[in-house]
Amino acid sequence: MTAATTPIDPVALSAELIRCPSVTPAEGGALGVLEQLLSGAGFACTRVDRGGIANLYARWGARGANKSFGFNGHTDVVPVGDAAAWSRDPFGGEVVDGVLWGRGATDMKTGVAAFAAAAVDFVRQTPPDGAVILAITGDEEGDAEHGTVALLDWMAAQGERMSHCLVGEPTCPNVMGEMMKIGRRGSMTCWFTAEGVQGHSAYPHRARNPMSALVKLLARLEEKPLDQGTDHFDASTLAITTIDCGNPANNVIPAKGSATVNIRFNDAHSGASLTEWLRGHAAAVQAETGVRIDLRIQISGESFLTPPGDFSALIARAVQAETGVTPEYSTSGGTSDARFVKDHCPVVEFGLVGKTMHQVDERVEVAQIHQLKSIYTRILKDYFA
Amino acid sequence: MTAATTPIDPVALSAELIRCPSVTPAEGGALGVLEQLLSGAGFACTRVDRGGIANLYARWGARGANKSFGFNGHTDVVPVGDAAAWSRDPFGGEVVDGVLWGRGATDMKTGVAAFAAAAVDFVRQTPPDGAVILAITGDEEGDAEHGTVALLDWMAAQGERMSHCLVGEPTCPNVMGEMMKIGRRGSMTCWFTAEGVQGHSAYPHRARNPMSALVKLLARLEEKPLDQGTDHFDASTLAITTIDCGNPANNVIPAKGSATVNIRFNDAHSGASLTEWLRGHAAAVQAETGVRIDLRIQISGESFLTPPGDFSALIARAVQAETGVTPEYSTSGGTSDARFVKDHCPVVEFGLVGKTMHQVDERVEVAQIHQLKSIYTRILKDYFA
Ligand SMILES: [Zn+2]
Ligand SMILES: [Zn+2]
Repeated sequence: MTAATTPIDPVALSAELIRCPSVTPAEGGALGVLEQLLSGAGFACTRVDRGGIANLYARWGARGANKSFGFNGHTDVVPVGDAAAWSRDPFGGEVVDGVLWGRGATDMKTGVAAFAAAAVDFVRQTPPDGAVILAITGDEEGDAEHGTVALLDWMAAQGERMSHCLVGEPTCPNVMGEMMKIGRRGSMTCWFTAEGVQGHSAYPHRARNPMSALVKLLARLEEKPLDQGTDHFDASTLAITTIDCGNPANNVIPAKGSATVNIRFNDAHSGASLTEWLRGHAAAVQAETGVRIDLRIQISGESFLTPPGDFSALIARAVQAETGVTPEYSTSGGTSDARFVKDHCPVVEFGLVGKTMHQVDERVEVAQIHQLKSIYTRILKDYFA
Repeated sequence: MTAATTPIDPVALSAELIRCPSVTPAEGGALGVLEQLLSGAGFACTRVDRGGIANLYARWGARGANKSFGFNGHTDVVPVGDAAAWSRDPFGGEVVDGVLWGRGATDMKTGVAAFAAAAVDFVRQTPPDGAVILAITGDEEGDAEHGTVALLDWMAAQGERMSHCLVGEPTCPNVMGEMMKIGRRGSMTCWFTAEGVQGHSAYPHRARNPMSALVKLLARLEEKPLDQGTDHFDASTLAITTIDCGNPANNVIPAKGSATVNIRFNDAHSGASLTEWLRGHAAAVQAETGVRIDLRIQISGESFLTPPGDFSALIARAVQAETGVTPEYSTSGGTSDARFVKDHCPVVEFGLVGKTMHQVDERVEVAQIHQLKSIYTRILKDYFA
């Protein structure tokens, strides 16, 4: 057996990546480890660095191949938090009693290691008629401005393309294999500021109370559910995350107040339709109360869906075959880089159990890492079969 | 003409009082000035000091006389505020171009000087068949715990009583004589704290949002007016004075929030009935939302009314005779010590134009001080006629 045919151990590779302290925006050596591995296996590697962020694009096979399967993931991790609270070195990558410990053990150095290992072994053992692409970013946990977006921009400019993409984020709430994601709800935040006219509590009619206006507005926004859910999505939700004024004097009606709402929305809405809805309610309350209400809106991501079909069925079959569990098609959870990839090609997400992600003592059973590599390998085989 | 028959100049007396720096709780010499004047005119003076506060009780005539007319007022003043912003020394008591300047020029060293001057001249010139009482406190602008309440407590214990009482606070908004007060709305404050369950903005159903509960509660409290006003009172009012949370993270539903409302209520309500109303709404919202809502309530004063009748008519006639203006019977404005006196005897308030009270450059036309003394003198004459 030559070195070229020795299978890549995804656990050892995961541990090596965990030992790279790649807290966003630091590269920490993680992409270098992957680049070396992938180059050695015949992948054309390009560092697509932008805005101080390191990203890695790796392709095996011809550029612009008809059939090109892409993996997307990130090597950056969130900070360790309370370092003293960890049972193991968060950058140690230790395996103890079948468990791999460290920051990124679930989100998602293991996912990257599993698909890199699967891809390398696959192209070595059964070179496909097409391309295998790895688009790996160092800016997913940050503001994601120069991460997967930079990779996709660069790809478009270079004529690089993926026919389909699998994002390797942890997707299973509790049991390996139970959930894959075929879309995500959109997310937006609206900051309201209300400016009225200060006055004495005894004479509210001489003042214009910004807090009353905000209460009126927020009560209307929460009066009815945004929807009842759609075919593939849970109901949209709206949450008041704060209301603030800071007036200590109970005989004074304050001049100013503020409130923030966060909306997670399904495909019955868009950032634009919700912006219009929010502005309409604010304008109505402003007209009724004489309190000026300003809005600042940030749309973090639109909702998106890869409608169930051949591609999602292929992923689900592979998961079922390797775990015995039939994955649910879900659109739950927060945002991921799939929100960018969806503009490029059909995208589905599948990965490990995410229970300890972003927490102290992030860890995963090594058996699940092996399982994940097997799933990704089976997906590649089926895709190119 | 002997000294005993020289009329007391209410402007000189006002200026002398202004020169006593009697910012609550300091006596500053003000009550001493009055005690000397009143003792000299045959008033039995007692210092009713309690809790570090100086108060002065002065009676001319027999204790427990059938007919006893009382004046109530205060010599303490609010702080000068921005001393550099004053055009004149706030404790100078200067008269310039017919205007008396200084802290207390309207609220209410002038009022006290006017009724003391009227009372002294009156008992000297036309000794009445009855008693004239001056109950003067040094704690009205503070928390009023040891002021007029201490005087009334002491009076009750001593068998001292007033048949009727006039409070000399400034009552006229703009024009001398235009308004007297026959009652006041009550005032109460309610501090709500809401404690729910923190959670992720994307999953509001797993959290219990305290801000949503507060919005629901406050919207209900403001949904309908408390009333439409009563025979002698404006409508009761409710003002949200603050709502606070302080959550900076728009992906987090906070665990806690708070809100404060201030209610000014007429004789259609009581502190107890409103407390029940507030508790009822809070309990309903708690039951609906699962957010725990606690209340802390402070009733600063119940509403009260001296129904229009002979006493208020007598005051009004005197005002009309001296100013040519018919005073409105009002129950507007904030609280005053009349809220304590009303438990003792019928009470009405009449005094100067209060425009500059509590402000920088507090001042009053000296002509109005003379007018006020004349009004008080006429009231005494008519009362004992
Ligand atoms: Zn992640
Ligand atoms: Zn006053």
